This record gives sequence, structure tokens and C-alpha cells, in this order.
Amino acid sequence: MGLAQAVDMYPLSSYTFGTKEPKMEKDTSVADRLARMKLNYTKEGMRTSVEAILLVQEHNHPHILLLQIGNTFCKLPGGHLKPGENEIEGLKRKLNSKLGANSPTLQPDWQIGECVAVWWRPNFETNMYPYCPPHISKPKECKKLYLVHLSEREYFAVPKNLKLLAVPLFELYDNVQRYGPVISTIPQQLSRFQFNMIHE
Amino acid sequence: MGLAQAVDMYPLSSYTFGTKEPKMEKDTSVADRLARMKLNYTKEGMRTSVEAILLVQEHNHPHILLLQIGNTFCKLPGGHLKPGENEIEGLKRKLNSKLGANSPTLQPDWQIGECVAVWWRPNFETNMYPYCPPHISKPKECKKLYLVHLSEREYFAVPKNLKLLAVPLFELYDNVQRYGPVISTIPQQLSRFQFNMIHE
Repeated sequence: MGLAQAVDMYPLSSYTFGTKEPKMEKDTSVADRLARMKLNYTKEGMRTSVEAILLVQEHNHPHILLLQIGNTFCKLPGGHLKPGENEIEGLKRKLNSKLGANSPTLQPDWQIGECVAVWWRPNFETNMYPYCPPHISKPKECKKLYLVHLSEREYFAVPKNLKLLAVPLFELYDNVQRYGPVISTIPQQLSRFQFNMIHE
Repeated sequence: MGLAQAVDMYPLSSYTFGTKEPKMEKDTSVADRLARMKLNYTKEGMRTSVEAILLVQEHNHPHILLLQIGNTFCKLPGGHLKPGENEIEGLKRKLNSKLGANSPTLQPDWQIGECVAVWWRPNFETNMYPYCPPHISKPKECKKLYLVHLSEREYFAVPKNLKLLAVPLFELYDNVQRYGPVISTIPQQLSRFQFNMIHE
């Protein structure tokens, strides 16, 4: 129990980045997003989301790959599962949609690893919590963050309306204003892993 | 990889709390503490600390046992290892010193579980980070938080100058002002576990 799990981490320069057709957001406002969430809840019940933590290193420090929409909003690659969909398979489908090449032979063989955090949305509101709050028997969404183990070489196709950023842990830490509660506490969730920094 | 680890959690009322002789803090000020840390570093090198997350439930919500000194400052039970001491054995020694009965036959058989977070102190200052910051080759302290699995019945002996509090996750979450960066983000680090709430 005492041994830390090891995670290999390759330099950002090991990876190749191309572009593909834009992936537009389904909603144009937070109000639209919450309204669509409410409608889907009545049809399908609690929504499950899965998101990926993709790690690279620069200057021996871990960085996380984030998708940037416009000039400010950042998110982890991932999305909502279909009703009954397996979490691991669903995350692979979402990663292919967000970052996979259009050609199936160029798509990464995503290695989905450890679940590092679970967040709950008790109401049709933006607030989420890392536990299901007391007296909430019917949460509206459960979001799970998985570590994805990249191999030595990968090709990512980034939708033309988005930017893919490698953000260092020291930039995320204690920066809830810019990255929100879920992304800004990823450094704490990763702290238990031992990172093997692999150089070219 | 997709399955959440399960942790059994018993009601606070399952446990018995007694008292024992006071355990005074070694330092009376933050300045004294940092000065002693600096002196010990020159003799023994980087300090390793181990702390325990002891979980109980009330009203089906997880609570963490914290030791309160005076009326405000809270800390996890644990402490510094001796040079070369094994982390697991050292944490058991510290738990016996802080919470074990004086009689060896009444001391809990501490089940030290998963390491859930690792914090680094880069300088002889109060700031700690959940990663070793870039360009820091000689950190001054490494602090590891372990989940400790309590059994159905335990007896804790609380030093007379301290209080043992069961603090709910919803009180810790987003409450860095009161609990500090290490304790206030424990809810995120525990979120990946599946809690089995066991009732009497």
C-alpha cells in the first residue's frame, strides 16, 4: 500500500499536433446549457460525464493538455456518456471526437488509467462538489476525471475553433479564478503519483 | 482500472474516546518551528512527515477526525519520521503517540491504506505545494497523507490539551481560510473512493 504508482511522462515535443474541422459547442450560453441538461434529465436521468487528464512534461515539470475555447475558457477533453454507455469506452469515443485524427489508422490507442476525482452536480446549476452533498438523493450529474497514459509518440488533431494548451501544474495550482474548482485542484489529485520524466 | 476502490465507513458513535496526558507542541511560534526545521535539516537532510486521514460517518456523510489545538488551529494526526524510518511504521508510531491508549493492549491495530496526497516544502517557509516546484532541487520537507482504515470498534485516547473533532467534508471543502491548503482539499482527494456507509 505504501508504494506510489509510477506514471511515465514524455516531453511535449514528442507529440505531433494537426488540425481538423471545428467542433462547435452545443450551447451558446450557460442558461441554454442548464436548460438542455434539465430536458435531458427528464428523459435519461442523471448524466455521467468523463474527462481526460493528458500529461506531458516540459523542463521536468508536469503539464496538462487543456482545450481552450475563445481566449479564456479552458476545459479537459471529454464529454457526456450516452445512456448505459461504458465509462472507459465512452471516454475513448469522446477523445477520438475531440482529438483523434479523422483517419481511424491514425487515432491513438487511448490507455485509460486511474480515476482521480469524481464531482457531483446536486442541482441544475453550475456548482459542483467533490462529494454528493447531504440530503441530495437525486444528483443531476456525476463527472469523473481519468488519467490517460500517453505513449512515446502520438498524433493529435485539434478542432480549428479550439486551441490545445500545455498548462504547467504550478499555473493550475491555487488558480480557481481562471481554471475553476475542478481543474485548479488537479495538482493535489496527481500529487500521490510518482512521475517518471522520460527524455528523448 | 475503471472500478472505484471501496472504503468502509462506520458511525462516529461506534468509537470510544478517552483522554490521556497532554502532548505539548514542541514550538511555541511559527518562527521557532522554522528555526528548528532549519537546524534539523543541516543534521538530517529533507524531513519526511506522515499524516493520517481517519474517516467516520454521520448522517451518511463522510467526516474526518482532526486534532484541534486551542480554539482555531486544526491538524491531522501524524508527525515527522525519524531519519531512515519506514513511512508505514512511522505513521503507526505517531498515531499511537497522538491517539493510542497508554496500555499496549488497548492500542488500535492501525490499518494504513492508500497514500492520497504528497506535499512539498521548497524553502524554510510555511508554503507547501502538491508538486516539487521547478528549479527546486533540494526541498526541505515532504509530507504524505495516508488513508487509515478504521475497524468497527476503536478506542482513542485524546491528549488533554487537544480536542478531537469529526469535521464533515462539506465543511472542509473550499474552506482554505480555516483549514489551510492541505486539509481543505482532502474532499477532492477522497472523491475517487466509493464509500460504504455501514450502520449499526
